[in-house]
Amino acid sequence: MTLFTRTLHLSVRLIRVQARGSTQIHCKYSKKTANIIDGKKISAEIKAEVKKEIDQWVGQGHRRPCLIAILVGEDPASQKYVENKMIACKAVGIESKTIRLADTTEESVLLTQIDKLNQDSNVDGILVQLPVPEHICEKKVMNAVDPQKDVDGFHTINVGKLMANADTFVPATALGVIELIKRYNIPTFGKNIVICGRSKNVGLPMALLLHSDAKYELPGHEATVTLCHRHTPPEELEFFAKRADIIISATGVVNLIKPQMIKPGACVIDVGINRITTEEGKTKLVGDVDFEGVSKVAGYITPVPGGVGPMTVAMLMFNTLKAAKQLVNNNN
Amino acid sequence: MTLFTRTLHLSVRLIRVQARGSTQIHCKYSKKTANIIDGKKISAEIKAEVKKEIDQWVGQGHRRPCLIAILVGEDPASQKYVENKMIACKAVGIESKTIRLADTTEESVLLTQIDKLNQDSNVDGILVQLPVPEHICEKKVMNAVDPQKDVDGFHTINVGKLMANADTFVPATALGVIELIKRYNIPTFGKNIVICGRSKNVGLPMALLLHSDAKYELPGHEATVTLCHRHTPPEELEFFAKRADIIISATGVVNLIKPQMIKPGACVIDVGINRITTEEGKTKLVGDVDFEGVSKVAGYITPVPGGVGPMTVAMLMFNTLKAAKQLVNNNN
Repeated sequence: MTLFTRTLHLSVRLIRVQARGSTQIHCKYSKKTANIIDGKKISAEIKAEVKKEIDQWVGQGHRRPCLIAILVGEDPASQKYVENKMIACKAVGIESKTIRLADTTEESVLLTQIDKLNQDSNVDGILVQLPVPEHICEKKVMNAVDPQKDVDGFHTINVGKLMANADTFVPATALGVIELIKRYNIPTFGKNIVICGRSKNVGLPMALLLHSDAKYELPGHEATVTLCHRHTPPEELEFFAKRADIIISATGVVNLIKPQMIKPGACVIDVGINRITTEEGKTKLVGDVDFEGVSKVAGYITPVPGGVGPMTVAMLMFNTLKAAKQLVNNNN
Repeated sequence: MTLFTRTLHLSVRLIRVQARGSTQIHCKYSKKTANIIDGKKISAEIKAEVKKEIDQWVGQGHRRPCLIAILVGEDPASQKYVENKMIACKAVGIESKTIRLADTTEESVLLTQIDKLNQDSNVDGILVQLPVPEHICEKKVMNAVDPQKDVDGFHTINVGKLMANADTFVPATALGVIELIKRYNIPTFGKNIVICGRSKNVGLPMALLLHSDAKYELPGHEATVTLCHRHTPPEELEFFAKRADIIISATGVVNLIKPQMIKPGACVIDVGINRITTEEGKTKLVGDVDFEGVSKVAGYITPVPGGVGPMTVAMLMFNTLKAAKQLVNNNN
């Protein structure tokens, strides 16, 4: 995007000020101008593509892909997440089942259950909904899933492959963010990307995919990436953010990303999902970004809800289809 | 380090210029001022520590740690590297052997050889000197080594563990750089670090260790990390470098890091090893950093040679001792 088209796009009023011997450009924004990145729409598109591919796959004589979720305990949020995954499976034509275990389930029982699913040639994808109860070792559970059925991409081998840019299951939320960037044609080559949040399943996988070489088996996106986190001083975050062509925030800190931190025209992707109480006493979902303010400066922005959120489930469907195809191909 | 001590340390001449309503400080450097980070000295210290620990270990009735290097082909540089590793083994009391294979060796023969060493309970560490001839798949070879004996830290499982900040073998050069930073008490918490070069065995492992949380099993160093590479435009590299408290360059690009890119007092670590021909026609080893110029601005700098170089072999010794102890502990 040239400066000219970007300027048009932002509908900014430019005031040229001749000062200190150099020409400076001040921008004044009068209304909300950023393009909304519509995660709901893209997620629907991806699910439609997956459905079409599954129909072809089944048409070729293969059985339907099958995803099994294991839910340990009664956490309402986890129940809701798993339910949404099952609904998506149904919509795209993936067989699915949720195995519900009591929150007192012993680790060994869970591991035995996982192993049974590993052995079951009718199962393509296995996911254990996190968090698991405290008496169960999360890492052990993640590594118990057959790496070929690990559609969440949490197994150490898949994590290692991701770091090597080898073909693997990329964790769904990180993959969803990348897909939004790709489908909105946001340039990344040689661009500056700031990632706020260094979680092992969102922030870090994005950093790995966005900074790396496009020539790998799992292609990278050739950006200069700055990884910021809770110990990045606010003035440093602002310094990096102001230079960023893309800012991705995945911190759970409400209003972390403010308008004065945004380079005009930048792309702002909000992975945060925070439940706040409004002045009227209502609860409301918001992200990490001051949407109202930032959307007056940014060129592209994801809303919350309806931005990154719907992408996670869509990419899980994508990963499950991939697992099904690979299992058949590896056995041939 | 406070501004005051840093100012003293740099022996700078400060000229206060009242301009544009604000006080600005201009620094003029008259001589080479940076502290030299002496990799030769630190490497000797680490080898002495490893030797002492091995003596105690053997004193407790254990056999000496044992490292086997496999060298395929006749590449002179590789021969020299392996030779240096063997010399270091001898110095610290590690049993060692180099298995030399012809450059026509078939992949399957190499894999069988590796498997034999995997099974050999008298072998603690196995390294295959890279590069291997083109007809051999490097990735397959790396993943053939038992992860518990993978003292180079190249196996996918060890790479995955590194990404998760789980205890593992950190690739020796990256570990060496971290060790230099630690032993010179260079602060990293909340600091800005620029890493130039995104290689999977140097740049990327450093980024993972430097940005991450200190509370993990493999503790991170809590810095804000910017990963730059060949597609980072020069003006962007300069922008990030000028703000960096630590710059680490591992690119093989001579004179990539210039004095005007350095924040006064910053720490500059040069992983590059480049052979150049001087005007007098002599060959000379230099790094990525304009040492002459940068050392007038930086607070700390590694020379080439004698900086990061000697650390690699020292950390390989460290990893081999670690492998030996873990194999005994895991079998108990």
